[in-house]
Amino acid sequence: MPKLWNETIEEHRRAVRDAVLESTAALVAEQGLRAVTMSRIAEQSGIGRATLYKYFPDVESIMMAWHERQIAGHLDELAELRDRPGTPGERLAAVLERYALIQQQRHGHGGEFSALLHRGDHVAHAEQHLHHFIRGLLSEAAKAGEVRDDVASDELTGYCLHALAGAGGLSSKAAVKRLVAVTLTGLRPES
Amino acid sequence: MPKLWNETIEEHRRAVRDAVLESTAALVAEQGLRAVTMSRIAEQSGIGRATLYKYFPDVESIMMAWHERQIAGHLDELAELRDRPGTPGERLAAVLERYALIQQQRHGHGGEFSALLHRGDHVAHAEQHLHHFIRGLLSEAAKAGEVRDDVASDELTGYCLHALAGAGGLSSKAAVKRLVAVTLTGLRPES
Repeated sequence: MPKLWNETIEEHRRAVRDAVLESTAALVAEQGLRAVTMSRIAEQSGIGRATLYKYFPDVESIMMAWHERQIAGHLDELAELRDRPGTPGERLAAVLERYALIQQQRHGHGGEFSALLHRGDHVAHAEQHLHHFIRGLLSEAAKAGEVRDDVASDELTGYCLHALAGAGGLSSKAAVKRLVAVTLTGLRPES
Repeated sequence: MPKLWNETIEEHRRAVRDAVLESTAALVAEQGLRAVTMSRIAEQSGIGRATLYKYFPDVESIMMAWHERQIAGHLDELAELRDRPGTPGERLAAVLERYALIQQQRHGHGGEFSALLHRGDHVAHAEQHLHHFIRGLLSEAAKAGEVRDDVASDELTGYCLHALAGAGGLSSKAAVKRLVAVTLTGLRPES
């Protein structure tokens, strides 16, 4: 098998796993959670049914793994924006705008399985991580005088995350940007 | 029956209904939804079981009626604040603070039956009413120059309601007031 000669078993397993996650997410988005079966997923991923069961016990666990990977990807994206050059206030604005756009997209992907997915422990963990992440940036910006310091950064984080959750109901990118602008105005130091 | 001589049937029915709602809410808060039975409610309300069933078919329907009455009470309270003297901006601030405090209290009342209650149609209806109500006040304040007019009042309403939903997680009245202050800062016209 020359095409596999440089692949380790780990790499192969990851590739199969990724293919299964992609195929399942596509099938669920297209046909709804209830219509998707393990056989259909195996077929779509180009692997045998028996192999699929070595990776995942059921459709729900595949969707859960897919969701975990999505969330991890979003957190990476936000961390990348935080670590770019710029003042803390500029980087905060970039992170919050990206977060709001993610909320909007997420909402667009029908709600059928979002209730299921949000029961997972990984979500509570990710939310905690996100809170910690935004709080750090807010407190940095407050020290730089770019964000109000009369309210604790923990409370300001709650304000930002709740206000931006509203992006889920917005239909245009322009509306999301306006929401971010209003939310950032709320963070401004009293002049 | 001299003590009933000036009561109409309607008044009597309303009094029984109110007593049932109060007793049920108190029992559920004390013992949890699953522990409360129709017999226990009849006993606590001081009426017969057969009479109780003429008013309500089950515990869930009583809790639903109780919740509807609560929501209607909150909306009345907010309307009363809106109609007091003052500039639109002042009245908006009073309404939003009261709304945030209600969110905080509501959260305090354990979550066991809140999921059940929030499935009711009356909740969607009340949310729509509230949205309309806040939007009217925001647009009045924008016309008076007290609220920014670069963002539509519909979008500002979504911002306010989402941001203030965060009051549910706050433990002190002071924290709720800070959240309201931050949210109001976001509404300020660009100077």
